[in-house]
Amino acid sequence: MSARYQDIARQLERRLDAGEFPPGSRLPSVRRLASEHGVNSLTALAAYRWLEQRQRVLARSRAGFYAALPPADPLAHPAQALPSPATLVEVDSRMSQLLALSGSDIAVQLHMAEAHHSLYPSQELARRLQQTLAQRPELIGAYLPAAQEARLRRLLQSLAADWRLDLPEEEILFCNGITEGISLALRHLTRPGDTVAVETPVYFGLLQTLASLGLKALEIPCTPDAGLSLEALEFALQYGPPVRCLVTVTNFQNPSGALMPDDNKKRLLALARRHGLSIIEDDVFGELYFGNQRPTPLKAWDRDGDVVYCASFTKSLAPSFRLGWLSGGRHHEALARLRASSSLVSPALLLGALADLLASGDYARMSQKLRQQLAQQMERVADAVLAAFPRGTRLRRPQGGLLLWVECPEGLDSGRLLEAALAQSISFAPGMLFSAQPRFQHCLRLNFGQPWNAAQADAIAALGRLATEQLRRT
Amino acid sequence: MSARYQDIARQLERRLDAGEFPPGSRLPSVRRLASEHGVNSLTALAAYRWLEQRQRVLARSRAGFYAALPPADPLAHPAQALPSPATLVEVDSRMSQLLALSGSDIAVQLHMAEAHHSLYPSQELARRLQQTLAQRPELIGAYLPAAQEARLRRLLQSLAADWRLDLPEEEILFCNGITEGISLALRHLTRPGDTVAVETPVYFGLLQTLASLGLKALEIPCTPDAGLSLEALEFALQYGPPVRCLVTVTNFQNPSGALMPDDNKKRLLALARRHGLSIIEDDVFGELYFGNQRPTPLKAWDRDGDVVYCASFTKSLAPSFRLGWLSGGRHHEALARLRASSSLVSPALLLGALADLLASGDYARMSQKLRQQLAQQMERVADAVLAAFPRGTRLRRPQGGLLLWVECPEGLDSGRLLEAALAQSISFAPGMLFSAQPRFQHCLRLNFGQPWNAAQADAIAALGRLATEQLRRT
Ligand SMILES: Cc1ncc(COP(=O)(O)O)c(C=O)c1O
Ligand SMILES: Cc1ncc(COP(=O)(O)O)c(C=O)c1O
Repeated sequence: MSARYQDIARQLERRLDAGEFPPGSRLPSVRRLASEHGVNSLTALAAYRWLEQRQRVLARSRAGFYAALPPADPLAHPAQALPSPATLVEVDSRMSQLLALSGSDIAVQLHMAEAHHSLYPSQELARRLQQTLAQRPELIGAYLPAAQEARLRRLLQSLAADWRLDLPEEEILFCNGITEGISLALRHLTRPGDTVAVETPVYFGLLQTLASLGLKALEIPCTPDAGLSLEALEFALQYGPPVRCLVTVTNFQNPSGALMPDDNKKRLLALARRHGLSIIEDDVFGELYFGNQRPTPLKAWDRDGDVVYCASFTKSLAPSFRLGWLSGGRHHEALARLRASSSLVSPALLLGALADLLASGDYARMSQKLRQQLAQQMERVADAVLAAFPRGTRLRRPQGGLLLWVECPEGLDSGRLLEAALAQSISFAPGMLFSAQPRFQHCLRLNFGQPWNAAQADAIAALGRLATEQLRRT
Repeated sequence: MSARYQDIARQLERRLDAGEFPPGSRLPSVRRLASEHGVNSLTALAAYRWLEQRQRVLARSRAGFYAALPPADPLAHPAQALPSPATLVEVDSRMSQLLALSGSDIAVQLHMAEAHHSLYPSQELARRLQQTLAQRPELIGAYLPAAQEARLRRLLQSLAADWRLDLPEEEILFCNGITEGISLALRHLTRPGDTVAVETPVYFGLLQTLASLGLKALEIPCTPDAGLSLEALEFALQYGPPVRCLVTVTNFQNPSGALMPDDNKKRLLALARRHGLSIIEDDVFGELYFGNQRPTPLKAWDRDGDVVYCASFTKSLAPSFRLGWLSGGRHHEALARLRASSSLVSPALLLGALADLLASGDYARMSQKLRQQLAQQMERVADAVLAAFPRGTRLRRPQGGLLLWVECPEGLDSGRLLEAALAQSISFAPGMLFSAQPRFQHCLRLNFGQPWNAAQADAIAALGRLATEQLRRT
């Protein structure tokens, strides 16, 4: 039943107990540990994470792992008894590992959260941008984009109104992708050392942002079916460490694909109010819905300005523009100041081009086409997974987004699966990336943003075979 | 001799001494104080700043001013004896005040640090961007710009080598304008409460960034002739509070226009080494030199990786691209991670377009044309100021950049001058913006980035008349 990384961790624990590594001393590097046990680095890292979680080792950013003090009285750590204890996130290198895969020449890449460039209306966007440039080349020389911002704010206001989200025009702020919006909101709402509630599994980029700000992540379960568990959140708010704010991907969560039901959105707001909790809503996938109606953001029911709503066109229209925006509720003014002192403004040219496009009325059609393609690809990928993966594998077809979360039977080590897949020139995102704790070793995240073709079909069949073999051998 | 704001401050001080406002109580709003004394708000604000500097009042962000505790034993504040004591910067609204002027319909705007869009090769850049789009429309759909980044890094490496700045290719990181570069560097190098040395007068945007990070500014004198005073810096490092790092605009400083001599650059590095001081070099104006040779950045002599070098094309080529870059020395890797978690990447499309332009070899010609125009405009503006402003007005013609620093005779209140100028639809940046302390009330900063014409000539003549009148009346 127990996975390989746990064996390794237990062996190392015995060596720690025996005093081989006094507290504070440096432990073997991940690579070293891996080769000692004849496993890959991801497995060795999982062993360290498990020990870290049990407070037997300490991770130091880029310096490796160190022996911790001997275990204290467990009662001295009441938070450990909670379902999701606060853990200092140490994920510096996860995203960079994954990004490195993108630069490689892997044949079938399923590890990202992006759509293939051919799915975006690139030709049309390019033509429009050329028109914008022909009509107003002076846009290139514009230092401050006040006019473009004002125009785009009005257009976004009416776009959002279509999703039942009414925002005052002056409460729309532009930023570099949603990443900047979330980073600004966290910088404003928290201080280093604070605890932030996040979903688990969670987008690893968020763990990295939290780590860079010295924040602790309190992981609240989120399932593909029900989304963020409000029960677990309430329990954590009542009995856990003080939580400063919650970051939630309400629509088509990464990686679970979960869509938070409208009722839960309203309940979450009430819960947050009761506990004085601020919410950062990450709606990066909201525009990629497969149903008839664009899901309504949580923010739509926010009467008190508690929600910092963040959105972006990086996934839904023009990735390379990196145009995100936020509406900060009662924090809006402070966020606008923070943005000005962090990166000043967004490129006037791109703001102008996006405004031209939204004003043209073509966005609805472009967006619908992208959604239809994604919905079809999702079905193909899901079918292929169910056909090829070992019995007991579960998935829920998401109602939008770019990502399929696949839960293999317990015991599968998706890190090892990735090494085997890479050897066949196939990539995916292994479960261990999506939590600071070793919860999701048996899961994988597949990107269905790539056009469906024979190579993809073959790749998923191969993944299924590799998973089946691995389970048979353990 | 004493300025109006000082009279007002002294009166308020007497009321504080008399106990009219107990410690912690709220003082009249700036607007109220202004109307009580029949002065404008900038003058009332200067009075408060003066009292704040003497620790008689406390500023609370957006909540106004409060009475401080009675003055403590001056010996308890040894820093006060230094030429440039550390002062918690409270400049939230300065930049936004100035930005608001940009959105207005003021006829002759001399308050910004930008060149008029007609000075940039907008038509040519637009044509090139159209070519880029025609050849590679798929760039629009590119989420991660790894290929564009790699190409642009190589091009920047050889561009910088022309200025005798040799950088490893992998030590070039892109960011959203130089603002983001400096903000990242400060976030990495400092903790809230730390003291950062800056030039005085200083770019107010930097004061705002420091304030947003909870940092204190230690202002080190910088004169148009000699640039940053290394003597003052050394004195401050020896006898002042611990200083975490220095931010310096080495080439054509904003607002003084100072160019740091090469010898001083080398001495500064040695001084920093001796005191374990990190340096953030802001080279936003370096490409706008009027002489025969592009000034060499401080970074060129940095053997030990102590300098975080920040540059940008926002002033020198394409403001609306907002493409900045940095080379972080021994902090580079940490800065790359911080950037990824703060805003991920820059727009692939713009990185690609800039690379195409640099590769074409046209940049040198475009850049030369811009420099020649700026040099001519600088001479016109400087001549006009010397002809129109009161006797005793001093200026030094800068050797590059966009900005002319005008020192009027002591006693001139440039805040009042600005109000009078605005009434005639003329704007400039008053001296009070460039320090947290009331040092530069008699100075003004003029932008010479606007094409020279009769309206500008008239505007500068009018400014001179207003200044002369004001001095006659005091
Ligand atoms: C949940 C989530 N939030 C934020 C981001 C980053 O978005 P952006 O590119 O707009 O910064 C991603 C990217 O994958 C994501 O999945
Ligand atoms: C000295 C200085 N640094 C930085 C900036 C901001 O530059 P960017 O637009 O590249 O963020 C300015 C803008 O005026 C400046 O004068």
